[in-house]
Amino acid sequence: MNVPVAKGTISTEHLQQFRSIVGDSFVLVDEESLQRYGHDETEQLSFPPEVVIKPRTADEISAIMKICNRDLIPVTPRGAGTGLSGGALPHLGGVLLSTERMNQILQIDERNLQVTTEPGVITEVLQNAVKEKGLFYPPDPSSRGSCFIGGNIAENSGGPKAVKYGVVKDYVLNLELVLPNGDIIWTGANVLKNSTGYNLTQLVVGSEGTLGIVTKIVLRLIPFPKYDLLMLVPFASLEKASEAVSAIFRAGFVPSALELVEIDALKIVSKMVDSSAVPVNDDIAAHLIIEVDGNNMDVLMQDMESIATLLNDFEAGEVFFADDAQQKAELWKLRRRAAEAVKASGYTIEEDTVVPRAELPALIKGVKALGKQYGFQAVCYGHAGDGNLHIRINHPTIKNSHGNAEMTTALRALFELVHELGGTISGEHGIGLIQKPYLSTVFRAANLQLMQQIKKAFDPNNILNAGKIFDLN
Amino acid sequence: MNVPVAKGTISTEHLQQFRSIVGDSFVLVDEESLQRYGHDETEQLSFPPEVVIKPRTADEISAIMKICNRDLIPVTPRGAGTGLSGGALPHLGGVLLSTERMNQILQIDERNLQVTTEPGVITEVLQNAVKEKGLFYPPDPSSRGSCFIGGNIAENSGGPKAVKYGVVKDYVLNLELVLPNGDIIWTGANVLKNSTGYNLTQLVVGSEGTLGIVTKIVLRLIPFPKYDLLMLVPFASLEKASEAVSAIFRAGFVPSALELVEIDALKIVSKMVDSSAVPVNDDIAAHLIIEVDGNNMDVLMQDMESIATLLNDFEAGEVFFADDAQQKAELWKLRRRAAEAVKASGYTIEEDTVVPRAELPALIKGVKALGKQYGFQAVCYGHAGDGNLHIRINHPTIKNSHGNAEMTTALRALFELVHELGGTISGEHGIGLIQKPYLSTVFRAANLQLMQQIKKAFDPNNILNAGKIFDLN
Repeated sequence: MNVPVAKGTISTEHLQQFRSIVGDSFVLVDEESLQRYGHDETEQLSFPPEVVIKPRTADEISAIMKICNRDLIPVTPRGAGTGLSGGALPHLGGVLLSTERMNQILQIDERNLQVTTEPGVITEVLQNAVKEKGLFYPPDPSSRGSCFIGGNIAENSGGPKAVKYGVVKDYVLNLELVLPNGDIIWTGANVLKNSTGYNLTQLVVGSEGTLGIVTKIVLRLIPFPKYDLLMLVPFASLEKASEAVSAIFRAGFVPSALELVEIDALKIVSKMVDSSAVPVNDDIAAHLIIEVDGNNMDVLMQDMESIATLLNDFEAGEVFFADDAQQKAELWKLRRRAAEAVKASGYTIEEDTVVPRAELPALIKGVKALGKQYGFQAVCYGHAGDGNLHIRINHPTIKNSHGNAEMTTALRALFELVHELGGTISGEHGIGLIQKPYLSTVFRAANLQLMQQIKKAFDPNNILNAGKIFDLN
Repeated sequence: MNVPVAKGTISTEHLQQFRSIVGDSFVLVDEESLQRYGHDETEQLSFPPEVVIKPRTADEISAIMKICNRDLIPVTPRGAGTGLSGGALPHLGGVLLSTERMNQILQIDERNLQVTTEPGVITEVLQNAVKEKGLFYPPDPSSRGSCFIGGNIAENSGGPKAVKYGVVKDYVLNLELVLPNGDIIWTGANVLKNSTGYNLTQLVVGSEGTLGIVTKIVLRLIPFPKYDLLMLVPFASLEKASEAVSAIFRAGFVPSALELVEIDALKIVSKMVDSSAVPVNDDIAAHLIIEVDGNNMDVLMQDMESIATLLNDFEAGEVFFADDAQQKAELWKLRRRAAEAVKASGYTIEEDTVVPRAELPALIKGVKALGKQYGFQAVCYGHAGDGNLHIRINHPTIKNSHGNAEMTTALRALFELVHELGGTISGEHGIGLIQKPYLSTVFRAANLQLMQQIKKAFDPNNILNAGKIFDLN
């Protein structure tokens, strides 16, 4: 069964209809807007849409989808455009549907420790709002200051806290979803346990805007931990640093963050962010950033000391403890701005590999070997505690992997290694547009067929974010 | 599109083929076996299959499924038969496929804190095996001493620890699955974070054996907490007890268990289990069982004292602290055997409602009112910390809700109340056979349609556990 990509054209009449639904000022066709909404943070790609629409409500989205579904007009939903796999790129033209005006936190339910929010709320704004009530929403991608919670749902984002607290999927209780045909449903219920039918909520989380458009989100919250401690630990070799990661868990500790940053990445980001505290010398290959949190400071101090002692077995250098809130903020800024800094410095291609945590040393070794073989430099950083390694690639001439045969060959080799190590292609960035060629390295045809049939069940006309994750033909 | 229920008949030739696949001794057609595998722990229902098959491997299951798929023979997969919604009942006859011989723990990966197991391992056996390595697999239904881990996956089971540690879905990383057409796939990867395509793993968890047969399971593990403390707290009213539950979380505590047991349930189970420690007098309406766990005993003592102090505001009676392992075991035995005891005492119908935690008082009040209206007695107990309330119903004449119009009307009224309170039908037992009539109280037609189409994507001939969760026509 072939399901062709939607390719209806947008007429003047369509534009009139869209304007009557959302208001004249929220239907944009000027060149500057089309360019602005034509790219996200993925490589250096640009695919302008034909029209940008900024609806305010689920009902407006429903009305737009009914038109597009009838006339086979491609629709690409978009959050803040901070994605790294091209999920929000309107590569087929058509309608770009921005959720930026759906930016209200609807209810913080202190009785049940839940928050209901619209998708266009910036993740950090949401975190701060619930923190004021003593509550904690842990998942926070590096882009938390600019990304939207709706985009986090689409990609099943993680961030540094995932190692202790889990990722987005572990906090989503219920979603209001506009289906491609315009129907509006809730996927589940506002409860902590649910064995009532297939888990549509979990199916939608991480489905990258291909199954429906999320218009309301119910998240569970937890009490905010009272204290945290942070330290930075240098290592003479990448392998020793990544071996140490595994040892920390095997010793019974569960840090609230356990990040690895290769020295080359730190050198680059240090130029962008003031960081007198961080040692950068020739004996150091990588740092671990280790955070513990909880409600008892004595326990945290003991844990940090025990972890530091344990790290001596892995040739760790002198530990730097962040003394106060300012030093902590500085350290986190270094880590959070790594992606932005290395990209600006030529490392335009990013991979989001994930392996079982103890396989990190083998992965890092393999990355370096592939770099030599295929003529690129690679710097590694990421959520080592989860085995989730971001690999930034700087090739002298190839700046986009998308559509490039040589880089596609190199990346296929990388993902074959990842698969051999028991891992997979993406830990938190998604497949989107640019990782499509590699799905066959980790999935059998039967897996892909099931996913394609699920897509058809939600979107028989293939109008919603078509050609993302996989092609239907 | 109508998809009829499979109704091919099993011939002598089929039996021969099954015997050649799994061996003569593992294909049973004697009356005693058919009767034994014709019921589970659901109400007093019995639906004998036509044949019981006990395969040992995924390949054997694949071969069986190919035959059944070709000849439209209904297949019902079964774990230990401890289910409470009739998911393992072969109500269409056909093949009963028991996973009891697939009972090996394949690998405990201490480097990555993961375990790979076959589905026929008893949950408690698995827990004990990983505990020997200092590791913890928290989800443990009350039936953990007899239920299979495969059945827990099918129902997305919870248990008392879910309130702190989450349910089965929060621990499943990857599943080997035999599809209805005999294909064998892995649903994901052995990693802690995964944004690679649709989350087939989470879709299969809780799908009650309707999408495929799970043949291998990869679970993440966590370090085993060193200490726990347990207390039992009596309350003069059910409402006060359930209000106290919500207050504990709002004060920032996250107990590792927070169970509610109504006094009538405790009275019944006390007759079955020796329990000198537990006060049962006329001033008491319900008890809370509260456990905290962690690695620092001083912190736990402080937490317990703070919680006990907080409970004074809710008219709590004298707190009973379990002093040693034996007293703890005794208390837990009382709680764990509640279902069995009250069922034996006439409460044959069980519901598995779940609401936002703060709505528990309203739910309990509603249950009692419905009992008066429809002429049944109800006792409540369950995982109050999660808002998951088990309601056991004793009707003077109606012993099965399944197929009974009067009880179906009463239960529909119950689930309408649950839905109004923001809750849903099942927190951890599933929909199976007996809760099908009530799905429309919590889902729109569009939700059901999506689920039905997902089922068709996995099982176009509707041969695998057909007529469970929903009917396809």
